[in-house]
Order: sequence, then structure tokens, then C-alpha cells
Amino acid sequence: MENHLLPTYDDVVAAAHRIHGHAHTTPVLTSRTVDQAFGASVFFKCENFQRMGAFKFRGAFNALSRFDADQRKRGVVAFSSGNHAQGIALSAQLLGIPATIVMPHDAPAAKIAATREYGATVVLYDRYKEDREAIGRDLAITHGYTLIPPFDHPDIIAGQGTAAKELFEEVGVLDTLFVCLGGGGLLAGSALSTRALAPECTLFGVEPLAGNDGQLSFRAGSHVRIDTPKTIADGAQTQQLGDITFEIIRRDVNDILTADDDQLIAAMRFFAERMKMVVEPTGCLGFAAAWHMREQLKGQRVGVIISGGNIDLPRYAAMLAG
Amino acid sequence: MENHLLPTYDDVVAAAHRIHGHAHTTPVLTSRTVDQAFGASVFFKCENFQRMGAFKFRGAFNALSRFDADQRKRGVVAFSSGNHAQGIALSAQLLGIPATIVMPHDAPAAKIAATREYGATVVLYDRYKEDREAIGRDLAITHGYTLIPPFDHPDIIAGQGTAAKELFEEVGVLDTLFVCLGGGGLLAGSALSTRALAPECTLFGVEPLAGNDGQLSFRAGSHVRIDTPKTIADGAQTQQLGDITFEIIRRDVNDILTADDDQLIAAMRFFAERMKMVVEPTGCLGFAAAWHMREQLKGQRVGVIISGGNIDLPRYAAMLAG
Repeated sequence: MENHLLPTYDDVVAAAHRIHGHAHTTPVLTSRTVDQAFGASVFFKCENFQRMGAFKFRGAFNALSRFDADQRKRGVVAFSSGNHAQGIALSAQLLGIPATIVMPHDAPAAKIAATREYGATVVLYDRYKEDREAIGRDLAITHGYTLIPPFDHPDIIAGQGTAAKELFEEVGVLDTLFVCLGGGGLLAGSALSTRALAPECTLFGVEPLAGNDGQLSFRAGSHVRIDTPKTIADGAQTQQLGDITFEIIRRDVNDILTADDDQLIAAMRFFAERMKMVVEPTGCLGFAAAWHMREQLKGQRVGVIISGGNIDLPRYAAMLAG
Repeated sequence: MENHLLPTYDDVVAAAHRIHGHAHTTPVLTSRTVDQAFGASVFFKCENFQRMGAFKFRGAFNALSRFDADQRKRGVVAFSSGNHAQGIALSAQLLGIPATIVMPHDAPAAKIAATREYGATVVLYDRYKEDREAIGRDLAITHGYTLIPPFDHPDIIAGQGTAAKELFEEVGVLDTLFVCLGGGGLLAGSALSTRALAPECTLFGVEPLAGNDGQLSFRAGSHVRIDTPKTIADGAQTQQLGDITFEIIRRDVNDILTADDDQLIAAMRFFAERMKMVVEPTGCLGFAAAWHMREQLKGQRVGVIISGGNIDLPRYAAMLAG
């Protein structure tokens, strides 16, 4: 990967212009309870209040906005069982681009229905027998669709970077910023904005303890691939970082931390009980890690990006009930 | 009740100055899903994000701010098992006023503990044998405490009116505004702000179907008292409106509507699933009524005040699970 292919903060700025008026400028919330517990000022950037309930809309809309006339006419294809699929489907609908989403046949019926509601064509596959990437590539070649991957794409990364950009623009520089990490799109984008707007800020990526491929890769200095991890953080069940995201993360991130499922559930309950917010397990990663090291954050200005709030109600209810 | 004893919009403006910097200016959220379903623009004023999780902090802080030096030294007493107790306890702590809260002995342990955490003295009583109002009055007389009732007090009403004031100032005039109704403090305060800032706005109070004392009183033109209603909307289980609140509501409110418990649970699930917010049952009243009459709101600018988000997690989880 040559450096000249990496997106820069200029690309984040351009993405911010493209998504303006389409994506929400999400609120930054604070909690006196948290500030007292930390002895610090903590700012939560709430992407659970983003359109379709997660930051993924930012990158998806940015990527599709850059399609030329031919690409728009032919359409887009994406494979995802989660927030990326919704982000692509909604963005495609808004931009009048035909969308095909490859989803596992056992994905929640509500998610399949929601994707269809956005006007997308859903292609189901058997996740135990078939390879979704191969299906996506076949569709792209056969029909001339443009394939948009969930994180390892310059326009996706630049779009995701707009959340941290908004955070810094609203609250000013921070001493430490916590960002959750799956494939690394949000973290890499946040890194671009952080190094441009708060260069001295310590930037931590946070991933599930059971799926610490990012931490292993970061510390080894080269890609480490793991089996699909068992964690409730379904948005961070990636097996390895992307090529582009890893280059940026290696260069601009200070360290990768982890949180286990019990910490995520504790954070989820805190968000519901004290901050009156629904946060999905992956969205709890940043706060769980910050809480764990709060003694070291005393007196600081701390940022936490909450990535999303999409979780089926029965599953959410079960986690709150304990 | 003489009219010159009624609070006015000037009192709301004065309250807004007193609580500035202490209460949050809560966010106004919108939902494209709601707007599409209504064919209208709907604005949610989110008092579930207020300090201690409900609008009650506004009135409590305003009332305690008006204490003279002697009252501040002697202290305040309040009786409540709910949000008013928390609002008084927190406000008293912030203002350095001793507080005594009379609570039922079978109130949730977490609520008793939280009230004590705010530094208040908690006096427990047996709700099946003792009269909390008599206990409160006795404490006031014996110790010289000032008794602050939960809704029927000009300073409480003026403080609660600041929420609607903020809503109008942020989004402009509205065609219809929905406000939940228990004893009428929030509705009466909202009425003062509505008649000053959006005089043509249709203002609806909404109470639980099982506890429609306000609707009966409004339509009869005189107080109607009912038995304590059975409803999940525990913040609206009042037996009758206050004297002051009723005078204002009769004069300034267009009608009183109702919502049943099933409608409240449907609204609560909608808020969690689509808007990623925790809303307590009472806080769902306004939206439940608006949803029910959405056909009549087409093309309008509609406001809904969400009163709070305080609900025990196990109870909340059970309601979400269905």
C-alpha cells in the first residue's frame, strides 16, 4: 500500500460537505455522574442518534456521492448483515442508485425487511457454505455494480472521519479520545481528524477482548488474522483490519485497548439508566475502556465516540435484565 | 383562587434566568420515520436528558432559588416517591439547603438511596396507614421547614414552563403541542409559555386513560377527584389537579386527551428502537396521543414534550420484552 493512496484530512473535509444536510450533526452529550466518577470532563459523540442509528451512514453516503453517472446508473453492491448494509441501502435510496445487498439467510427478519424498505434488492446466502465476498464480486462483474466494502475504502474512511471532526469542532481539543474498532473505518477516519484538529490528543482504539486482532496487529506491526470472535459486540466481529485502515491506524493511533462482554453490558446499563440512551454492544466499547482506566484520566478532557444504537429489542431487554 | 395569584409568563422568564447554568437546555430531537408516518414535522423536547432524568428539576430549582436567608437556613421538606423528591434533593444540595424528603417505606431501594446520595434526610412512612401530607406539614411546623408541593405552587409551575419556552425558542411556533398531565405542573407551565410564544397553538394535555381526572375536571369545569388510578404511568397517578394548575389549564389548554397502557408501551418501544432513547411510561403520554391522532396532524408543525426517563431497568426490560 503506497502512502499516496491513503485518504487525508482534506478528504474528510470534502466528505463533510457531501454529507451536509443528509447526515445528522449528532449531539454531544455529557453526564455529571461520569464527570464526577472520572474527575474529568467527558464528551460523548452520539452516533446512535445518526440516521439509521449508526455512524455507518456517513461513509456510505460519502462513497455513493462520488459515483459517476455510469456507476449511478448501474448500481452498488455491498455485503453486510449489519449497519453498513443499512447505510448503503438508505444512501442509495436517497441518491437514486439501485442497490443490491448480500445478507446471510439467517439474518434477523427485521434487518432484511428494513433493508428492503429502503428499496434495496436483498440477495441471501448461506453463511456456513457460501462466501459472501465471492458472491458480491460475482454480482459486481456480472451486472457492472460497484462494490463498496464496509471499511477498507478511502471514501468510507473519509466519511467516518466526519464524526470526530464534528466532535472537535464542537468541544475543542481533547486530551484523550476513545473510538471503537472492528475493521477500522471509524478509527482510521477519526485518526485523520484527530491528527489535524488535536494533534497532541492520545487516540485509543478499543476492540472486544475476544477479538483483539487489531491489538495484536498493532503491536506486531503487521496483519494478524484471527477466527471470528465470540462477543456480543457484533459490529466488531472482524477477523482482521483492512489494508488502508491498518496503515492509518499504525501511523496515527497511540494504542489499541480491549473490553470484555461484561464490561460492555455494564456500560450499556449505565447508558440506559443514567443517560437514557440505547447503545448497542459495539457502541459501548469506548466508554467501557475509558471507565476501566478512569484513574489515569483525572483532570483531562476526554472524548468517547458512541458508534450506534441498533440492537433488537428482545436482545436488548435480555441484556438490561441481566 | 384569585387570578392575581396565578403565575404568568413573566414568572417563567424569571425562572429561566434562575435555572440557567444549573438545568440543561435539553435537546430537541426529530425522527424522519415519525415525520413520514405523520406527514408532519414533529419536534420532541427531551426532558429525559434533563438533570436527574426529568423536567421536575426545573421547578424544584426555581422554587428553592427563591427562598430567603431564613428559609435556606431552616430547610425544605417535600413528599414524593418519584421525580419531584429527586429534583428537590438535588436542588437543595446545589443550593446548600438542608432537605427532608418523606417517602413511602416500600419505595424502590434505589430511589431511597439516590435521594440520600443527594444529601437529603429521608423520612419513611407507611403508605397504607399514614398520610404523607400530614407528616410533611408536621415536619414543616415542628422544624420550620418550607414545604414545597410537587405541582400546585406558582414557582414550580413557572419553572416547569421553561421547557416549552426553550422548545418554542429553538423551533419557532407550532400548530399543536402535546404535554403529559399528572397534577398539571408541566401542563400549566407549558400553557403560560404557549400562550406567550405561540398563541394560536393548539395545546393538549394527555393523561392515562385509567386516571382521567384532568379530562373529567376540564370538561365539567370543576374539580373531579378519582381513586388512585392503576396505570404504568406512575408519574401521572394523581387523584386530582391542583387548584392553581387547574385555573391555568381551564383558561389556556384546548383539551385533555388520554392514552392507555398498551399505547404507552408501544411508544416506549418506538423510542428505544427507532430513536435510541429511554423514556419512562409517563413520558410516553404525549407521543402516544399524537400518534393516535396523526391523521389530523398532516402538514402541521407538532411538538411533544417527553417528561422523563426514570424507570428501574428490570421494569424497563420487562416492558421492552413484552
